Amino acid sequence: MKPIRVALLGCGTVGREVVRLLHEQADELAARAGAPVELAGVAVRRPHKHADLGDLLTSDASGLVTREDVDVVVEVIGGIEPARTLLLEALKAGKSVVTANKALLAEDGPALAEAADASGVDLYFEASVAGAIPLLRPLRESLAGDRITRVAGIVNGTTNFILSAMAASGASYADALEEATRLGYAEADPSADVDGYDAASKAAILASLAFHTRVNSADVHCEGIRAVTAGDIAAAATMGCVIKLLAICERTPADESMPESVSARVYPAMIPATHPLASVDGAFNAVFVEAEAAGQLMFYGQGAGGAPTASAVLGDLVAVARNRVLGGRGPRESAYASLPVRPIGTLRTRYHVSLEVVDRAGVLSTITGEFARHGVSIAAARQTGEGNGNGSARIVVVTHKAPEAALAATVDVLAGLDVVHGVHSVLRVEDLGRKGVAG
Amino acid sequence: MKPIRVALLGCGTVGREVVRLLHEQADELAARAGAPVELAGVAVRRPHKHADLGDLLTSDASGLVTREDVDVVVEVIGGIEPARTLLLEALKAGKSVVTANKALLAEDGPALAEAADASGVDLYFEASVAGAIPLLRPLRESLAGDRITRVAGIVNGTTNFILSAMAASGASYADALEEATRLGYAEADPSADVDGYDAASKAAILASLAFHTRVNSADVHCEGIRAVTAGDIAAAATMGCVIKLLAICERTPADESMPESVSARVYPAMIPATHPLASVDGAFNAVFVEAEAAGQLMFYGQGAGGAPTASAVLGDLVAVARNRVLGGRGPRESAYASLPVRPIGTLRTRYHVSLEVVDRAGVLSTITGEFARHGVSIAAARQTGEGNGNGSARIVVVTHKAPEAALAATVDVLAGLDVVHGVHSVLRVEDLGRKGVAG
Repeated sequence: MKPIRVALLGCGTVGREVVRLLHEQADELAARAGAPVELAGVAVRRPHKHADLGDLLTSDASGLVTREDVDVVVEVIGGIEPARTLLLEALKAGKSVVTANKALLAEDGPALAEAADASGVDLYFEASVAGAIPLLRPLRESLAGDRITRVAGIVNGTTNFILSAMAASGASYADALEEATRLGYAEADPSADVDGYDAASKAAILASLAFHTRVNSADVHCEGIRAVTAGDIAAAATMGCVIKLLAICERTPADESMPESVSARVYPAMIPATHPLASVDGAFNAVFVEAEAAGQLMFYGQGAGGAPTASAVLGDLVAVARNRVLGGRGPRESAYASLPVRPIGTLRTRYHVSLEVVDRAGVLSTITGEFARHGVSIAAARQTGEGNGNGSARIVVVTHKAPEAALAATVDVLAGLDVVHGVHSVLRVEDLGRKGVAG
Repeated sequence: MKPIRVALLGCGTVGREVVRLLHEQADELAARAGAPVELAGVAVRRPHKHADLGDLLTSDASGLVTREDVDVVVEVIGGIEPARTLLLEALKAGKSVVTANKALLAEDGPALAEAADASGVDLYFEASVAGAIPLLRPLRESLAGDRITRVAGIVNGTTNFILSAMAASGASYADALEEATRLGYAEADPSADVDGYDAASKAAILASLAFHTRVNSADVHCEGIRAVTAGDIAAAATMGCVIKLLAICERTPADESMPESVSARVYPAMIPATHPLASVDGAFNAVFVEAEAAGQLMFYGQGAGGAPTASAVLGDLVAVARNRVLGGRGPRESAYASLPVRPIGTLRTRYHVSLEVVDRAGVLSTITGEFARHGVSIAAARQTGEGNGNGSARIVVVTHKAPEAALAATVDVLAGLDVVHGVHSVLRVEDLGRKGVAG
């Protein structure tokens, strides 16, 4: 049987594992793909670091991806360039592509999909979201006969590790980040993780697949966890909640103000401690899916790491190889729904607002009055720390569901009041899965 | 675009939902499949009960599945015959098949797979295990580049509802079964569920897919939950455990006694209350998968019911339709590994043995001596109820991992001892996922 030959772009943590598994599981992969799956070459920037790969190594990635004897290109470089140019060249040259590159897919996925279509080849990217957890294939294929209404999940292990550590020990954000860095869960420059960009890329990919529409990373409202304090986490606990960095993708039916639309957003939010996502701790990922017929589903596992990510890459590689051996193609981009993306200002959620105020009679009434004036209905308000001698008190307000824009306007006004020393925090409260889930 | 025409066999709870969704989501399904997906006919035994389906109805199932204008046959009759004959006829006639029939697949899956191969058509069966939870596609495809070592899950909602109810309220098995029947979670004849046969069929399907080998329902060691008492559940709680009916499929490396082998088994077992499967309550299903590279994964959702099962059927139907529109085929049977099935007697697990004994000095020593004589190492033994005045006491022994055969021989001998009034219960203790899982 003519082997399927693979060009590997990048040989970091994930790439090394791909090489190892291709070697160790060669017989199994051949049996499953219908032909041997062989490495044709490995493109890296610094070949001297990978001497063990011998003749397979090249620093000419562009030459490798268009080489006659290459059938499939596996990309684990990450980032936009040179990955985009290389993959477009590969697809144009008729190579199928397997990629783990969430940033590229979220920014320019349709260009890749169109290039794959033009050449009649496959584009698979299971490893781009939630690592080893089979999530994209279920969304694209298993649920293709259903209407997905919401996808909400913990899709970034670094931030989940940090928030879990803060909750477990009462540590500050800075201390928890330091621990995450020391243990290898956070990179030296943690911005992509802690500012939510990584999760936002994944949210764009999930929303696109779930709702059959194009959602770009620029469409995703994104807030990270840098501002989350130990006090916020304690406040969440008081409410029977935990704080998780969530990627939330929702389809909203048409209403008086908008046609049917989708929203995709990433922010730290309070969720009930009894929700299945609340107990997902450490570097684990979990994604909750709701569909009209299927009901509530949850997928749980390791979202990152060399071996788990390589597992997802190789699953795709077997599918792509089998398609080349037997003919046929995997699912293509499905964006027929073309739904508008809902502006974050029109989003309706609940909020937990914490203010430092002057300790004086009537202040609580002034504050709650401002909420009322903006049409934001209050579920609970409480004042603590009165008479502590330093002249300030803490007011916490929890709202009913209110439009983001109204809440933002309220907070703006509050921040300017003489009686308000400062707005301590504004956190969303998400009542995911209101129907209640066993467990 | 020429439509894909579907023959539906059976129109019960699931069939009605399939009809509804095909109708309500016609536009979406057409967009996703690449062509309209239409009902060509519905075969039922009693057409008068489905008058609303009008001309689509027929009682001639055999005629329908071979009809010229039919592309795909969806089977939701269940049971071995006439389903087997009808599906073999359909496959022989070049129709692709989507089925939810776990009993048939577990008994005769290879015959169906061979018929599909002979005609070059698809055989999909996501709905046969764990209803709406996308589980088979991940096992068959997403994890095709990995080595799965264990699949363990709660795959029968009826028994999970009963065991959850017993644990929550202290109810007896009989009372919990009655409640399940009253609420529609158990059928009038509950044997297929409570005796474990339904779960055993699913275990056979899961083991076949996970380990790329043929496992038949007759290969699955199967014990149901009829013998589980409120006392057992209380005893589990004392150990920090809960009792769940588990389907467990494991791959065991070669050792001195056997080559590499698989085991598939269904029985009620104690699992740690902290394990993610322990908190899966009511009629929900969840399946835990361990793979060498991917690590630990969990899938959770509704395992039964008309709409969830129909969601899985329609997901398969879209895949099969797309393959017919675009060319190509889904994954075929992958049974290249041909691994032997390990006899239950060679299985090694831990056990919780509860005995009613004569309240007399030295009895504990006699009992523990019998374990030792059979080479079964004891982790803990305790005696309660001494001096209760009725002359009897309770001894509970928890073993380390021991071969099933040695434990069974020990229990046989114990049951015959003069000092033993009776063997109250023998329950396995499964320490799934020893590596520890977040949450």
